[in-house]
Amino acid sequence: MAVVIYPGTFDPVHNGHVDVIRRARALFDRVVVGVAQESGKEPLFTVDERVEMLREAVVGMQGVEVRSFDGLTVEFARRCGAVAIVKGVRVGDLEYELRMAHVNRRLAPELETVFLPTSPEYGFVSSTLIKEVARLGGSVDGLVPEVVRVRLRRRFGGS
Amino acid sequence: MAVVIYPGTFDPVHNGHVDVIRRARALFDRVVVGVAQESGKEPLFTVDERVEMLREAVVGMQGVEVRSFDGLTVEFARRCGAVAIVKGVRVGDLEYELRMAHVNRRLAPELETVFLPTSPEYGFVSSTLIKEVARLGGSVDGLVPEVVRVRLRRRFGGS
Amino acid sequence: MAVVIYPGTFDPVHNGHVDVIRRARALFDRVVVGVAQESGKEPLFTVDERVEMLREAVVGMQGVEVRSFDGLTVEFARRCGAVAIVKGVRVGDLEYELRMAHVNRRLAPELETVFLPTSPEYGFVSSTLIKEVARLGGSVDGLVPEVVRVRLRRRFGGS
Amino acid sequence: MAVVIYPGTFDPVHNGHVDVIRRARALFDRVVVGVAQESGKEPLFTVDERVEMLREAVVGMQGVEVRSFDGLTVEFARRCGAVAIVKGVRVGDLEYELRMAHVNRRLAPELETVFLPTSPEYGFVSSTLIKEVARLGGSVDGLVPEVVRVRLRRRFGGS
Amino acid sequence: MAVVIYPGTFDPVHNGHVDVIRRARALFDRVVVGVAQESGKEPLFTVDERVEMLREAVVGMQGVEVRSFDGLTVEFARRCGAVAIVKGVRVGDLEYELRMAHVNRRLAPELETVFLPTSPEYGFVSSTLIKEVARLGGSVDGLVPEVVRVRLRRRFGGS
Amino acid sequence: MAVVIYPGTFDPVHNGHVDVIRRARALFDRVVVGVAQESGKEPLFTVDERVEMLREAVVGMQGVEVRSFDGLTVEFARRCGAVAIVKGVRVGDLEYELRMAHVNRRLAPELETVFLPTSPEYGFVSSTLIKEVARLGGSVDGLVPEVVRVRLRRRFGGS
Repeated sequence: MAVVIYPGTFDPVHNGHVDVIRRARALFDRVVVGVAQESGKEPLFTVDERVEMLREAVVGMQGVEVRSFDGLTVEFARRCGAVAIVKGVRVGDLEYELRMAHVNRRLAPELETVFLPTSPEYGFVSSTLIKEVARLGGSVDGLVPEVVRVRLRRRFGGS
Repeated sequence: MAVVIYPGTFDPVHNGHVDVIRRARALFDRVVVGVAQESGKEPLFTVDERVEMLREAVVGMQGVEVRSFDGLTVEFARRCGAVAIVKGVRVGDLEYELRMAHVNRRLAPELETVFLPTSPEYGFVSSTLIKEVARLGGSVDGLVPEVVRVRLRRRFGGS
Repeated sequence: MAVVIYPGTFDPVHNGHVDVIRRARALFDRVVVGVAQESGKEPLFTVDERVEMLREAVVGMQGVEVRSFDGLTVEFARRCGAVAIVKGVRVGDLEYELRMAHVNRRLAPELETVFLPTSPEYGFVSSTLIKEVARLGGSVDGLVPEVVRVRLRRRFGGS
Repeated sequence: MAVVIYPGTFDPVHNGHVDVIRRARALFDRVVVGVAQESGKEPLFTVDERVEMLREAVVGMQGVEVRSFDGLTVEFARRCGAVAIVKGVRVGDLEYELRMAHVNRRLAPELETVFLPTSPEYGFVSSTLIKEVARLGGSVDGLVPEVVRVRLRRRFGGS
Repeated sequence: MAVVIYPGTFDPVHNGHVDVIRRARALFDRVVVGVAQESGKEPLFTVDERVEMLREAVVGMQGVEVRSFDGLTVEFARRCGAVAIVKGVRVGDLEYELRMAHVNRRLAPELETVFLPTSPEYGFVSSTLIKEVARLGGSVDGLVPEVVRVRLRRRFGGS
Repeated sequence: MAVVIYPGTFDPVHNGHVDVIRRARALFDRVVVGVAQESGKEPLFTVDERVEMLREAVVGMQGVEVRSFDGLTVEFARRCGAVAIVKGVRVGDLEYELRMAHVNRRLAPELETVFLPTSPEYGFVSSTLIKEVARLGGSVDGLVPEVVRVRLRRRFGGS
């Protein structure tokens, strides 16, 4: 049974993430979504909130599981028994992702990195943009799961 | 059983291709390498020669099969019962590959495209460069399977 | 009255082009679509056919005119009394377009180049891809105006 | 009458900005330069200083107005009655700008984004580089309006 | 004494090339400009014409020599006793140049590739664009040496 | 005697840096490695530690010297009597480096910037990645000089 992980900060999860999860699941038997407890910068939501929103966003998807982790991504992948790390990719961030893939391969040669192309309709969406728009009072309808929309409104107010 | 195709012109196959095939095979049950009969430009080797070299290059790999095809890549994928199209990707050709992925998704929404990062040691290798170096009498040792090295020498002379 | 030109080969026109024309027209009083008679490579359709298809594609748009031209784009722009050259732009072809813009500015300093971002849903469409898909018998529904779909089918057969 | 906005942080304005304003004004009837009160990071100059320097930099240009704003750029554009947002673009930052354009279009579908290519002689200039050079005591002559040169010197000393 | 080569097709030489030669000469004792006899596509000028124009363009520069060559660039470099291959580089063509550098290093590990950044004022100039503009009757004043301007006019007519 | 500088933050030095130093030394008579005392962000190691690690990393290389500096890079270059600034370059960070090169040329027109292509095997390595991996307890064997490996372990623990 082929297991893959889909790691990220998910601060918060948006519809582009959900799309990648669904597509990864069509290719592999099990997808473990890994929520990194810490990233470089201060997150808007706690790791528990981020996990909770993700769980609601993937409710009903068989073979998808959400967990938090800290430490190296490759160690998390090994604990999950994964054969690969899945990443969504769009024009403009491949360089960074390729570097990470090479580092990870060096740390864990048995582990592949697999890139899934981001759907054109979500190609411009990122968690940073979502937060910025919400902070300034703009609408994020259709870009994030309902649970995220509600929580962002609670945080920032707005429509 | 998850089947994927790995399509290309393979004029000729080089070690970067072989590396992608090996890694795709580690992730999926079966990999069908699809040799496109015609590409935009006049190939150096006939489709039969290209298939023959590929078969020698993957000899001994279980679950890997080499076939030629014409027509749309997505139709070939369907005939193979594939869940995804595999492409190697390196910095600098992602834009084109992403466009093709979006076109293919439109033609066959049930089919995914999966990008595997090219190994750094083959990141600079391409069939075009291989042919150019061989034509000018340079050595392609270590960049192509032995069968290809021999055939290129037969064509162009050189070491 | 601000006039702009939108030059290209349009071999054939696709929905991404039509989208740019419509958006340019919302910004400027008059848009002259300029069909370059010759490009570097052999076109699929004659310049008359390309003009004809474009005229059908923009039927009913006020302030839009289609003309063919040869020679320098900046000379065509001057003959039209244009203040700017409009180009659609997507990630991955900006470098070339910026170079052309600098050359054109040197040839005609009074003329601006204006880039309009391609809509995400057409970001992957190009005339070359359209022809390739049609040639191999794939469907281009929804990617080109009806008149183009019909003509491509007449040329290549297919659905 | 076609109104456009040209938004930014302008911390501080440099000659590349002034060049874009002049060129936007040649295409549209009125250009409202919008100075964003807050950006992600701590600015060097207050919003009032930034507005003041811009006003001096565009003195004598008819149909150009400088205002500060907070909140969403698209809301500012609406308040100004603008048909488009103007952005200068150079190789290397298009990806980010295209993403913002798609987000803004989603928030305000009636609003276009228009990219003007940066002049080659200012292609390397940015507010960040200007501040870095000034901070280290280098000369920014010819890269910024006189008023900015004077203020930077007052801040950092140097020639 | 450090010798470098500066290889290319130079069909024809333009002022960006001359700028790189001058700057390479400031760094190394001797610069051998290598004119490749054949490139992938049919040149506009014969190799003798290209050499002749280059020689006029560098007249008076001490330590600069122009020669034609065929075969591998690295073999030419070795025959010249060069320590490095010099290439001009601008945003947008680095990927290709880096690949060539890695191939050349593999073929001749003792040989370096050195990239000099193209001056912003020539960043948009290329031999292909020069020929296109001249063919369509546009002016190339200030973009090419006088000898090239005269020859292009003889070929294509125009100002 | 041709002197060049190789400036950076080196927080900490890694094997990609050492590779560039060795190759720059093959081209020029003397290489002065310049350790910038301050960069934008808080460094992990003090400038004295960074100089010390570099000195150990280049021990035994004739004609290589390590110094710290503050202020403008071009002023440091002048104090060293350098003819050029050397930078390693890989796909994905050229835009920034080209901008810096143009700024530096404006500040010091007599000074060249020379880019050396990063070796493929170090193309993915950066000081930031090294620190991230070490912080999370991963192995950086083979990516950094021995002295750096030891110091990182002292800081972060791990293997």
